Amino acid sequence: MLHTFTTPTGPVVLREARREDVGQVVALLADDQLGRTREDTSDLTPYLAAFDAIEADPAHALYVLEDEAGTVVGTAQFSVLPGLSHRGASRAQLEAVRIAAGRRGGGLGSQFIAWTLAEARRRGCGSVQLTSNAQRTQAHRFYERLGFTASHVGMKLAL
Amino acid sequence: MLHTFTTPTGPVVLREARREDVGQVVALLADDQLGRTREDTSDLTPYLAAFDAIEADPAHALYVLEDEAGTVVGTAQFSVLPGLSHRGASRAQLEAVRIAAGRRGGGLGSQFIAWTLAEARRRGCGSVQLTSNAQRTQAHRFYERLGFTASHVGMKLAL
Repeated sequence: MLHTFTTPTGPVVLREARREDVGQVVALLADDQLGRTREDTSDLTPYLAAFDAIEADPAHALYVLEDEAGTVVGTAQFSVLPGLSHRGASRAQLEAVRIAAGRRGGGLGSQFIAWTLAEARRRGCGSVQLTSNAQRTQAHRFYERLGFTASHVGMKLAL
Repeated sequence: MLHTFTTPTGPVVLREARREDVGQVVALLADDQLGRTREDTSDLTPYLAAFDAIEADPAHALYVLEDEAGTVVGTAQFSVLPGLSHRGASRAQLEAVRIAAGRRGGGLGSQFIAWTLAEARRRGCGSVQLTSNAQRTQAHRFYERLGFTASHVGMKLAL
């Protein structure tokens, strides 16, 4: 257990994901306007392989938020990346940040992201970065309120 | 030596950077509208530490392009990142891509990025991603010609 957040509907615990959480994490990723077309919850095999790769490398962490009933209500992947630019400063990168639809608006996401910023600082990173689909305009405002700047264009190419 | 590219001004070799290349790589990063305000070429210590971190982890590679005179005329960092989303597909991420000012416009950058796409495919990645400062409009067109889509907003927060 890494932290406990207070929310209007009760405490939520932050911890690193375990292998048995993967099904719930994938369900969160799939319950989304963009995710529902690209995830496949019927076969967890590729997701478990990705989980194993994340767990094997201390540069990466998969976090889950768990409510009192043991339900996963949020997730994010946190990675520390080395790099030469910006005077050799490491960067923290967030990927696949999700809060369950029914748990939004109560401050849980803000507290969670604020915690990741503190964690990035603790791990000696000079910055935190993420990309957000251009369609997710609410998410952009959310991150801007937390201090992020939409300074970059995020470019993707599917192979 | 990973590949040799043909350019109007002679062959350019692609290889992984060595520790003694770091000074030239940092000079390339600093010779840039944005880089000149944020890099410090007078002390390589933090850059060498970052180089060591990249070299120690097989998930990361720092590439250099070297001309016949032994001058570094291009660089990019290539990283393979695990992740659960998109059915557990790994992503390749490019950071700090630079071609020396005097070597642009001859197809070197296009050939280099095309090579990284093939390398990402070879390493089993489902996609390639990068962020580019919103001010770098020429770079956006360059990547779009290579097949990238500016589908995301890149958000950054300095710690």
